[in-house]
Amino acid sequence: MGEMTIKDIAKMCGVGISTVSRAINNHPDINPETKAMINATIKEYGYIPNNSARNLKRTEAKSIAVLVKGISNIFFSSMIKVMEEEIKKRKYTMVLHHVEFNEDEVDVALQLVKEKRLAGIIFLGGYFHHSEEKLKKLHVPFVLSTIGCPPENFSKKGYSSISVDDELESYHMVTWLIKNGHQRIAILCAALDDESIGKLRLDGYLRALKENQIEIDQQLIRPMSKEMEQYSLQSGYTLTQQLLEDGIKCSAVYAISDMMAIGACKAIFDSGKQIPEDYSLAGFDGTELGAFYHPALTTVRQPVEEMAQATAKLLFEVLSEKSIHKHRIFPAELIIRESTRKIK
Amino acid sequence: MGEMTIKDIAKMCGVGISTVSRAINNHPDINPETKAMINATIKEYGYIPNNSARNLKRTEAKSIAVLVKGISNIFFSSMIKVMEEEIKKRKYTMVLHHVEFNEDEVDVALQLVKEKRLAGIIFLGGYFHHSEEKLKKLHVPFVLSTIGCPPENFSKKGYSSISVDDELESYHMVTWLIKNGHQRIAILCAALDDESIGKLRLDGYLRALKENQIEIDQQLIRPMSKEMEQYSLQSGYTLTQQLLEDGIKCSAVYAISDMMAIGACKAIFDSGKQIPEDYSLAGFDGTELGAFYHPALTTVRQPVEEMAQATAKLLFEVLSEKSIHKHRIFPAELIIRESTRKIK
Repeated sequence: MGEMTIKDIAKMCGVGISTVSRAINNHPDINPETKAMINATIKEYGYIPNNSARNLKRTEAKSIAVLVKGISNIFFSSMIKVMEEEIKKRKYTMVLHHVEFNEDEVDVALQLVKEKRLAGIIFLGGYFHHSEEKLKKLHVPFVLSTIGCPPENFSKKGYSSISVDDELESYHMVTWLIKNGHQRIAILCAALDDESIGKLRLDGYLRALKENQIEIDQQLIRPMSKEMEQYSLQSGYTLTQQLLEDGIKCSAVYAISDMMAIGACKAIFDSGKQIPEDYSLAGFDGTELGAFYHPALTTVRQPVEEMAQATAKLLFEVLSEKSIHKHRIFPAELIIRESTRKIK
Repeated sequence: MGEMTIKDIAKMCGVGISTVSRAINNHPDINPETKAMINATIKEYGYIPNNSARNLKRTEAKSIAVLVKGISNIFFSSMIKVMEEEIKKRKYTMVLHHVEFNEDEVDVALQLVKEKRLAGIIFLGGYFHHSEEKLKKLHVPFVLSTIGCPPENFSKKGYSSISVDDELESYHMVTWLIKNGHQRIAILCAALDDESIGKLRLDGYLRALKENQIEIDQQLIRPMSKEMEQYSLQSGYTLTQQLLEDGIKCSAVYAISDMMAIGACKAIFDSGKQIPEDYSLAGFDGTELGAFYHPALTTVRQPVEEMAQATAKLLFEVLSEKSIHKHRIFPAELIIRESTRKIK
């Protein structure tokens, strides 16, 4: 059988074409029984109204998926807010999808591409190790935003990326702590097999110690376990509690996210110690919350708004074929507030 | 002209049906020029591949829109996380859309319904005053989640709702403060023409004072201005700073969201005063952040997870026609932590 037309449906139902049209468009001016009969016929024969299918296709092509790894991260909330505005401004809609830390974001993306006819994808946060073969299946342009380590086997011409230099900015923070007299600096970091921003921020810590001839003490390196909610308040709390309970001496704690740093502060307060009198505390991200914490958090500020805008901009430039894929690294800023102090 | 079939496209292009199919499905095994020619023909004649159109329709019907008023509210982030899980579990996808405080969420919803073929809508937060006529146009089931005042002119049979009793829970909090010796309690609240949770929480405050024969002092009532980011850290900070600068005497500050309460704490600390020694501070929501703040925040905990699950559940029950629309009110819990104290 050839494809059904609206005429075929009308004929089968014994009604006029305009009645079928009213049923399809949910027009109030139609007998409910007639409408039900028409809808049943449409369903049975799989007829797709031509115009509405065409509209579907057109509007569906106007979605951008944002795939986020790790929902609880407030840093991402700020980025998503800006991205949504940028996407809306260009008359696209945003399909937001959160991916678990143990989920494969490209599998999720492939599924979305199939279901949603996306125009483009933004991957936000997380690892990104996928085969070239798999990435090629995506068939739509994508941008990696704040993902530390780019895919090794995939040409840089095949995607855009936005990030800060996580290793360098982390190095700056730890160097600053060392310059302020801290020699024993604990780091609350990602799992040691991490291959994304977590690895890079730890690398920056290690380099700063090495360049200052400070011996690396494995007891000061405190990775999140896989069971913890990654980069969360609770993970910072638990790691710091363990550090204190283990009796490991240190004068500063550096957490690789602001949320972890706030959790760390609370664990120190709960142990009866003060910040920064007993411990200096530093974070990473530059979230608004860090500024409102008491004491306000010393941190590395990533230019969230600019990065989110640039992420959308790169994607839309590729979509409109105005530009090829680009890779931008933003400078971050060391923000010294109340949670750290100089020691002798 | 009748509707195009894949045969027509193949004939026009002088290729076989399988070649057209390969072009449509982005199969790698096709000459790029042939593919371009086929795609151009498809575009010109507006042909929609039947199967893919059918898939589109099927998958499109499987979207649930979540319309959130006020993105910066961390309370909503927790709810959205749970809702996304619940929606995913049922093989639907979530279309998340943030609505500005001055935007009309039903207009946004009507647009989404048109573009996205939604199965259902969850409205999260905000006002909800819309004409019956307008709401009827939605044509898909919807749930109002944590929206204080239901639409007055619309039958309760036409939608589901989930909330706490905002007036009662606010009344409990203020009554507890009064029992702990506080007579002069400032409230950081919504604009005075608010007709949603903001109004209800203020009503609870007023009732508690009245029942305890405490005169209402308008100087202690501190509404957010329209220009402020609503319920935010910064709004809590600014309102409290103004309260202190105005020299208004009070022993407790009650903020109608945890984020505002944290902002208020920071303003008090910045003025050189202590919490709870100089001021008791109470919030509303029961966010994780309040627990990690220093001092940990006394607050009203809404059962976020249960409420988000119930929101999805009610919607899907209506969708599957297992149930009619329902209205559920959850009990909240007074959580006494470190930010408040008993005074004489």
